[in-house]
Amino acid sequence: MVFQGTAGFHGGAPKRITASVLPSNFGSIRMRILFIGDIFGRPGRNIVKDRLPGIVRDHAINLIIANGENSAAGFGITPALAEELFELNVDVITTGNHVWDKREIIDYFQMVEGNGHGPARRVLRPANYPADMPGSGVYEGFKGKIPYAVINLQGRVFMASNDDPFRTADRLLQRIQAKVILVDIHAEATSEKISLGWYLDGRVTAVVGTHTHVPTADERVLPNGTAYVTDVGMTGPYDGVIGVKKELVVGKFLNGMPVRFEPATGDARLCAVVIDCDDHTGKARSIERLMLS
Amino acid sequence: MVFQGTAGFHGGAPKRITASVLPSNFGSIRMRILFIGDIFGRPGRNIVKDRLPGIVRDHAINLIIANGENSAAGFGITPALAEELFELNVDVITTGNHVWDKREIIDYFQMVEGNGHGPARRVLRPANYPADMPGSGVYEGFKGKIPYAVINLQGRVFMASNDDPFRTADRLLQRIQAKVILVDIHAEATSEKISLGWYLDGRVTAVVGTHTHVPTADERVLPNGTAYVTDVGMTGPYDGVIGVKKELVVGKFLNGMPVRFEPATGDARLCAVVIDCDDHTGKARSIERLMLS
Amino acid sequence: MVFQGTAGFHGGAPKRITASVLPSNFGSIRMRILFIGDIFGRPGRNIVKDRLPGIVRDHAINLIIANGENSAAGFGITPALAEELFELNVDVITTGNHVWDKREIIDYFQMVEGNGHGPARRVLRPANYPADMPGSGVYEGFKGKIPYAVINLQGRVFMASNDDPFRTADRLLQRIQAKVILVDIHAEATSEKISLGWYLDGRVTAVVGTHTHVPTADERVLPNGTAYVTDVGMTGPYDGVIGVKKELVVGKFLNGMPVRFEPATGDARLCAVVIDCDDHTGKARSIERLMLS
Amino acid sequence: MVFQGTAGFHGGAPKRITASVLPSNFGSIRMRILFIGDIFGRPGRNIVKDRLPGIVRDHAINLIIANGENSAAGFGITPALAEELFELNVDVITTGNHVWDKREIIDYFQMVEGNGHGPARRVLRPANYPADMPGSGVYEGFKGKIPYAVINLQGRVFMASNDDPFRTADRLLQRIQAKVILVDIHAEATSEKISLGWYLDGRVTAVVGTHTHVPTADERVLPNGTAYVTDVGMTGPYDGVIGVKKELVVGKFLNGMPVRFEPATGDARLCAVVIDCDDHTGKARSIERLMLS
Repeated sequence: MVFQGTAGFHGGAPKRITASVLPSNFGSIRMRILFIGDIFGRPGRNIVKDRLPGIVRDHAINLIIANGENSAAGFGITPALAEELFELNVDVITTGNHVWDKREIIDYFQMVEGNGHGPARRVLRPANYPADMPGSGVYEGFKGKIPYAVINLQGRVFMASNDDPFRTADRLLQRIQAKVILVDIHAEATSEKISLGWYLDGRVTAVVGTHTHVPTADERVLPNGTAYVTDVGMTGPYDGVIGVKKELVVGKFLNGMPVRFEPATGDARLCAVVIDCDDHTGKARSIERLMLS
Repeated sequence: MVFQGTAGFHGGAPKRITASVLPSNFGSIRMRILFIGDIFGRPGRNIVKDRLPGIVRDHAINLIIANGENSAAGFGITPALAEELFELNVDVITTGNHVWDKREIIDYFQMVEGNGHGPARRVLRPANYPADMPGSGVYEGFKGKIPYAVINLQGRVFMASNDDPFRTADRLLQRIQAKVILVDIHAEATSEKISLGWYLDGRVTAVVGTHTHVPTADERVLPNGTAYVTDVGMTGPYDGVIGVKKELVVGKFLNGMPVRFEPATGDARLCAVVIDCDDHTGKARSIERLMLS
Repeated sequence: MVFQGTAGFHGGAPKRITASVLPSNFGSIRMRILFIGDIFGRPGRNIVKDRLPGIVRDHAINLIIANGENSAAGFGITPALAEELFELNVDVITTGNHVWDKREIIDYFQMVEGNGHGPARRVLRPANYPADMPGSGVYEGFKGKIPYAVINLQGRVFMASNDDPFRTADRLLQRIQAKVILVDIHAEATSEKISLGWYLDGRVTAVVGTHTHVPTADERVLPNGTAYVTDVGMTGPYDGVIGVKKELVVGKFLNGMPVRFEPATGDARLCAVVIDCDDHTGKARSIERLMLS
Repeated sequence: MVFQGTAGFHGGAPKRITASVLPSNFGSIRMRILFIGDIFGRPGRNIVKDRLPGIVRDHAINLIIANGENSAAGFGITPALAEELFELNVDVITTGNHVWDKREIIDYFQMVEGNGHGPARRVLRPANYPADMPGSGVYEGFKGKIPYAVINLQGRVFMASNDDPFRTADRLLQRIQAKVILVDIHAEATSEKISLGWYLDGRVTAVVGTHTHVPTADERVLPNGTAYVTDVGMTGPYDGVIGVKKELVVGKFLNGMPVRFEPATGDARLCAVVIDCDDHTGKARSIERLMLS
């Protein structure tokens, strides 16, 4: 069931967009990208499993990217969970500040050597982490015959220090051949994400934000053809505080004591955006926000 | 024109909700509250002037509250600008961390003595500022015969230090008689705003967030009857970065140099929520998000 | 052995200050307070055990206060460790942001009911924590016939949110009868600690800073008689980074990965200040910094 | 006059260290470096003018480095003020987060082109700022026949985002030929400064901290020969809060209102360290802290 109704969450019945699989002009193919917001714990993984086939069909999706940094009970991602997502046809997994929470991911990243398109290569960590860290922040692949790239960046405002995400994007874009490029900016501050959107407008297909776990309603295509949204929102339990049992987080605000956060369970929703773009130019035509429950 | 179209901003033609002025059950009157998100500079003030009468009519609004802390070119609010908003039928103005940016507001607050319902009394500053600061963080009034209260709070995560907004809310709620109570939580972190929503669920009519200048798509009525949204979004120019000329903010991210921020001008939008509640119980029935351009 | 020679750590052989036990004027007794900086783990506890008797003798100490929030392997304090310090003649133990790291301390605080001068009552947590938290932030006792008080406060700049330490101090000082009052301000920012020193100058005997684990060389008696130092410095292992094994902290700066911090072991030093004051007026006459190894 | 007596500020009458100008072993010359902490406004500049000749003579100083980022009334530095310091025989000026406060410094930096040893070249900004910013973060020169280098870095904890100071140091050290190398780490957190000290131990002559405006008493020579101190302390007015009029800063803590900070005037002190090193190996032999008034 698509969430909505009196409580007001946007959504509506998934629209079957048949037109989208038709060529939009001679020789050009519509590329339709699904980006799934931060998958949080078992509730997040389960709703992806349940709803993804329907979304792919109804929205004529070609390429699936998901932020998976909270997939292991809210904290990090394991190789097994990454591969579970790949089996659901996710193409590339992005992450963020929780990427190292499960140490197994380090070995997984280090396995990549000599196997540039193996599954471990399709799990990213932010590209503006120190260059000598395990893993990579960019993936270049093909979907059918269409080259595409995914860049993972992390913000710096109200977050740990890292290299400059703006200049890191510049540097990566100099060597990427694909026209279809999606950027996940995992960041806290709205100003930093919006600034990156404007900075990359016309140079990438989409800049989508993650990290705050709340979907924003400011999705739009910027004037030069980059689809933008400040935050895609969490895919996980909304009967909590950004995924965590609400009594634990409220308690933390009240008493300031150390607490071990546990994932919430109820009211799972899948938050995502669908970006429609021209595969020749990489320009976005539209971005549509989804919230399913 | 209502913003929307291919770029995906939610909105749609304003729906005329005639049913809402009918009594919803015997002796109970529907109270319909409009909360307008952070009004930013002249573009924000102008769109409020242009669109407010239509919204009031189409949504059968009884009570209008607006966050006005950015109304003076993005930084603070003057008495003249507050009264301009009152003339447009705004009932109560909330603010936040920019409240002191224009010093005239201090004198305005200090005029209040002995005139508890004069206009200056209807401009709030966060209630969890030190108790001896000018101004007040709560307003109690009547709309028709319906008593209502507005509480203004400010978050502490990633913001300046102030008293605890959770316990300040507890303290204020002990003495407020009205059932219809709206809380503006001016805060940065999604976790803090959502926690306050859960904390006050069933005790107030609505908890609406401001400050990030980006509308969130998580509006809902919590289980015990409190309408909630993490951020209402800015009412101001969207052809910028949270209201400011985009080249100035992007430049600041790139070079870190001090810069005098100037308001952007283009793509003005009005972001607001409409909350429908029962005036006898104060419980919310619905919350609807608006973005008009 | 007193640490160091030419390389410049202040200290020198402990001076036997025999004059200090003589009455400074008719009927007035010199009160000499030792405040020991953040005791970190076993190395910190051991050096306190080894050196405290000598310091007491050589500096004619009457009253001993110690910050013990890092005494349990760097993180928190247990009842057993608190009582170990009391057996060494420490009179009052202050803490800070790590106070809740060992949960046993909560029960210990809750035991206090009806036993206002039992040992648990002499372990403080910052007074500007929420009023309903376990424990107390102020202790009032007698040393011989001299009434004294200890106030524990925590800063808010670059730290978790709490109530205003300035106004909390005002409130506590209104009800304290003692003239001899020591304030431990556990804070990060130099500006906040120095501001509190000026704010309380003439109203308390001493404002001493803790938390940064580095002793500062700005000890002085402010014009109205309050002894002040920005940070007393850690009592613990200096062959590390503020008490922690240096390779772990350096590694954290380099790779940003989660790490379990372990206490360093080498180069233990005891950092403290000796404050000489007039017990009638509570005014400080001098503050002297110690670093022993 | 040397600051203070019984209240405990370290200092003592400046010792004439005649031995230090003698060769310490065959063919090796003692290099004696004076590093002056953050020069704040006119009080700071005046005390440098008054006391520097005496310090140079009494401590047999060969090389003078000063942090000048607060020399223009507390905020930034102008070309004129930089040259005033050069006329007092300061060799190199370091800065930090206030470097851009006076915009004239940008033109000054841009004048450097084609004049690698002109005076503008001897004013540094942190080396871990973006590479394309005006100015340089390293200076390599000769003092007599002795090559030396000065590196200016800025911390990231509790400060604005910049490139990694640890890896920036690595990169710069790969190309510096000099053995005598001084690093000014302009940073807030003690942990970050101490970590950099350990990280560079044995690779540079000295790591000295600036920014907090409070001298620390932890100066020492680390095991591999790097002199270290967490903060040299401000050279400026101590009758204030880190250089600013105390009533303004205390007021800001109490009321949170915007305020224009003005420099304090009283109790000017000069804080510095003297580092004695071997010019052949670059190893430090000692570091001595000075506070003069």
